[in-house]
Amino acid sequence: MSQIMLQRVLPFSKRLIEKASLPGETVVDATAGNGNDTQFLAEHVGDKGHVFAFDVQQQALDSTAKRLQDLVKRVTLVLDSHANVDQYVQAPIAGAMFNLGYLPHSHDLSIITKPDSTIEAVHKLLSLLKKEGIITIAVYDGHEGGKEERDALLNYVMKLHQSDVHVAKYEMVNQPNNPPFLLAIEKLRDFTEVRITE
Amino acid sequence: MSQIMLQRVLPFSKRLIEKASLPGETVVDATAGNGNDTQFLAEHVGDKGHVFAFDVQQQALDSTAKRLQDLVKRVTLVLDSHANVDQYVQAPIAGAMFNLGYLPHSHDLSIITKPDSTIEAVHKLLSLLKKEGIITIAVYDGHEGGKEERDALLNYVMKLHQSDVHVAKYEMVNQPNNPPFLLAIEKLRDFTEVRITE
Repeated sequence: MSQIMLQRVLPFSKRLIEKASLPGETVVDATAGNGNDTQFLAEHVGDKGHVFAFDVQQQALDSTAKRLQDLVKRVTLVLDSHANVDQYVQAPIAGAMFNLGYLPHSHDLSIITKPDSTIEAVHKLLSLLKKEGIITIAVYDGHEGGKEERDALLNYVMKLHQSDVHVAKYEMVNQPNNPPFLLAIEKLRDFTEVRITE
Repeated sequence: MSQIMLQRVLPFSKRLIEKASLPGETVVDATAGNGNDTQFLAEHVGDKGHVFAFDVQQQALDSTAKRLQDLVKRVTLVLDSHANVDQYVQAPIAGAMFNLGYLPHSHDLSIITKPDSTIEAVHKLLSLLKKEGIITIAVYDGHEGGKEERDALLNYVMKLHQSDVHVAKYEMVNQPNNPPFLLAIEKLRDFTEVRITE
């Protein structure tokens, strides 16, 4: 077994969610994609837990359902933007995961997550999150539109009040092929209104 | 007790060193400063372990000795640049810690760590490190000369071969007052010659 401590970004984000959420809790996969995170979340929250998985592409939800097999009963698949998360999900949730960019192996790589809706979703999820809950965001900036989303998102999270949340940025700096970096947001106290410092 | 997972940079670097090194091993404090990390390391490696603590200022070593009290017998205080670490320390070491910038509360804040000697020290420590050992570097870029050191160091670590080491960058992005960020380098395999990719 590997003893490596400095994990790559995607395993590290899973580990944070594992620590922040308990079996039986509700969590959100904000970007179902091909269902990798949805499956991980459904396994983690167990029989009594629940996962809401969002995607704007039917193709993604189909792949996710196929991957989930029996676990699909722990999951609500939502064909809508994560920006509308508050219409489907009630507080408290223990964690949420984002994997930004486009759907891998999609027919249409022009369908990408966008700065405004990503930020709206994060903003709403911060209200829905329990104290000590975590939002993880894998940020890709190699595709067209990626840099704009990265910068808008960084600009947003930098303004979150330091008494409300910790925001950490974690990246591997000596890897080839533009790997994603991680933004992780931990809620430090109960609040429903997100404070933005200017 | 706080359940906070997303730790600030300095506690996170200590936790990495704790995991990488065992009691009885040899570790290096490359920047003794006022002895905070030296004390932590001396406590961690225990009676059978040893710490080499470097500083170019006698004032720093005096503060460190004073703080260490009885623990000083586990520590070799070296009044020399960490760039000469290979003249004092033999492989294998389990970990090394850097805290860049100037000595807090010093009479002379113009004495700062410099890009060339910092990189030379890291380079030599990578050879001295055991497999799965870790080097942590708290990087401050708010002082004069800080940005140059930051950029030179990032440029160096980005070129370290991805089969030899993992290099992670960790920072809190919503904190005031220019907190440091962390560079952590984990050695993935045994080597004595550091490979630089161009």
